Amino acid sequence: MSGQAPIQRLAVIGVGLIGGSLALALKEAGAVEEVVGCGRELDNLEQAIELGVIDRYEQNAADAVENADMVFSAVPLGAMKAVFAEIAEAMSPDAVLTDGGSAKGSVLEAVKSTYGKVPRHFVGGHPIAGSERSGAQAAFATLYQDRRVILTPTEETDPKALARVRWMWEQTGAELVEMSVGHHDWVLAATSHLPHMLAYTLVDTLAKTEQEEEIFRYAAGGFRDFTRIASSDPTMWHDICVANRDALLAHMEHMIGDLKALQTAIEAGDSDYMRGVFERAKRERDAFCG
Amino acid sequence: MSGQAPIQRLAVIGVGLIGGSLALALKEAGAVEEVVGCGRELDNLEQAIELGVIDRYEQNAADAVENADMVFSAVPLGAMKAVFAEIAEAMSPDAVLTDGGSAKGSVLEAVKSTYGKVPRHFVGGHPIAGSERSGAQAAFATLYQDRRVILTPTEETDPKALARVRWMWEQTGAELVEMSVGHHDWVLAATSHLPHMLAYTLVDTLAKTEQEEEIFRYAAGGFRDFTRIASSDPTMWHDICVANRDALLAHMEHMIGDLKALQTAIEAGDSDYMRGVFERAKRERDAFCG
Repeated sequence: MSGQAPIQRLAVIGVGLIGGSLALALKEAGAVEEVVGCGRELDNLEQAIELGVIDRYEQNAADAVENADMVFSAVPLGAMKAVFAEIAEAMSPDAVLTDGGSAKGSVLEAVKSTYGKVPRHFVGGHPIAGSERSGAQAAFATLYQDRRVILTPTEETDPKALARVRWMWEQTGAELVEMSVGHHDWVLAATSHLPHMLAYTLVDTLAKTEQEEEIFRYAAGGFRDFTRIASSDPTMWHDICVANRDALLAHMEHMIGDLKALQTAIEAGDSDYMRGVFERAKRERDAFCG
Repeated sequence: MSGQAPIQRLAVIGVGLIGGSLALALKEAGAVEEVVGCGRELDNLEQAIELGVIDRYEQNAADAVENADMVFSAVPLGAMKAVFAEIAEAMSPDAVLTDGGSAKGSVLEAVKSTYGKVPRHFVGGHPIAGSERSGAQAAFATLYQDRRVILTPTEETDPKALARVRWMWEQTGAELVEMSVGHHDWVLAATSHLPHMLAYTLVDTLAKTEQEEEIFRYAAGGFRDFTRIASSDPTMWHDICVANRDALLAHMEHMIGDLKALQTAIEAGDSDYMRGVFERAKRERDAFCG
């Protein structure tokens, strides 16, 4: 374990797919001794114990982090600030705080607003993994295997805290990457947040047309794949839109402009333009997806 | 075989995934005695013979349809008109003509321009199946198993020709559906043509940004699924945009309008609007994709 001792007590705030899968992966790797879960829904916490995801739970986040040496906040982005405020006083002075939020700028703001600055023991993180399923029963130990986990340390971050979080994620089989908060939010807006907006809007647009049942009845495999991400959790995605507003808006602006240009080309029968878009896109997509 | 005798000679104009898979499926079902292929690329035709997709080939479409009792045109939409003009005189008087084009209005126009009217022996068709792969080597006998094939007969269509084409597709394991040409084109513009425009534009838009390599490197599974259709054949999709221009433009107009409305809502922090879109879309998508 590259010189690092197992985590003695991991507090997971928000025991869903992301938090639960981290707990399971660390248990399987022998990298954690005790996992304390915390969440709002009692049923989910009880189920998490039955499934061996957590060892015990607290309904109060301050109680959950007591004597924990690692705290992982996996709540929706809109709830991060409240969680940080609740646990700040209760955390051990040498504990490390990290999170799994899909936008890092807003999490950094949340932690700053609690501590008045970026605390040394905080390491922002984002595991690029997930699915449309949610809750503790969706968690599985291999979710992070060969997936990328992006860490976004700042200049205030304690190198030891960063090394500890890196080590933790390495135990799950993930590939670790570090980047700045701003770069993370820009890249994720492009590859994840914008596509979700397109998938949600497409399904909603078609659902509003006449004969929507007809439309969906003839939707083939390609449409199912294309719209899979529109089955994602609406609250989580609302929070992401609020949290990563500026980067997302910039990418949407480009996309809408390019869609309008394609629309104009189709209207005008501009074959060169159409072929140019389709050929460039195919070439790029074939190159990066093999 | 429900009262129908096997096809004696099937002429397949365009021996790719669509035409080749039909030939293979009919052979496997014992529903055809001889398959004559026709196409531009000699290598592809030679390979089609080696793979048992066709029994022999002609490079001239008029020669290929000689004494065929069933003719299937599986060329790109932009080539349909030329094929119809080439084979009209050479076809047997009692042969049935059908096609596999993804837009039916333009194929109907093409056949009308050849015959001066919609001929009784023509049955428009569209198998809702395919993949990003192409060529005879991509063909496989089970492509149409449990897939929908839409037939678009007109009031001019000979019921016997329609029954023959229905029967042919039933031998492949497909589920047959009939609808009007206009309805087909409207539904397909929504569920297939619009999503392709979104996927192509997304990849092209992101490829034009700075640090595009970075972006694609951090693209996760959702992005790969979402953009899979951007690897489709550019020429085929150019032809579809030209052929189904009006229906596609109408759907693009709605989609762009709804994207702009969502953009405005994100900018304004209008949580009710965002949640409304995401919740409706998730509900619809979960309902139709189970």
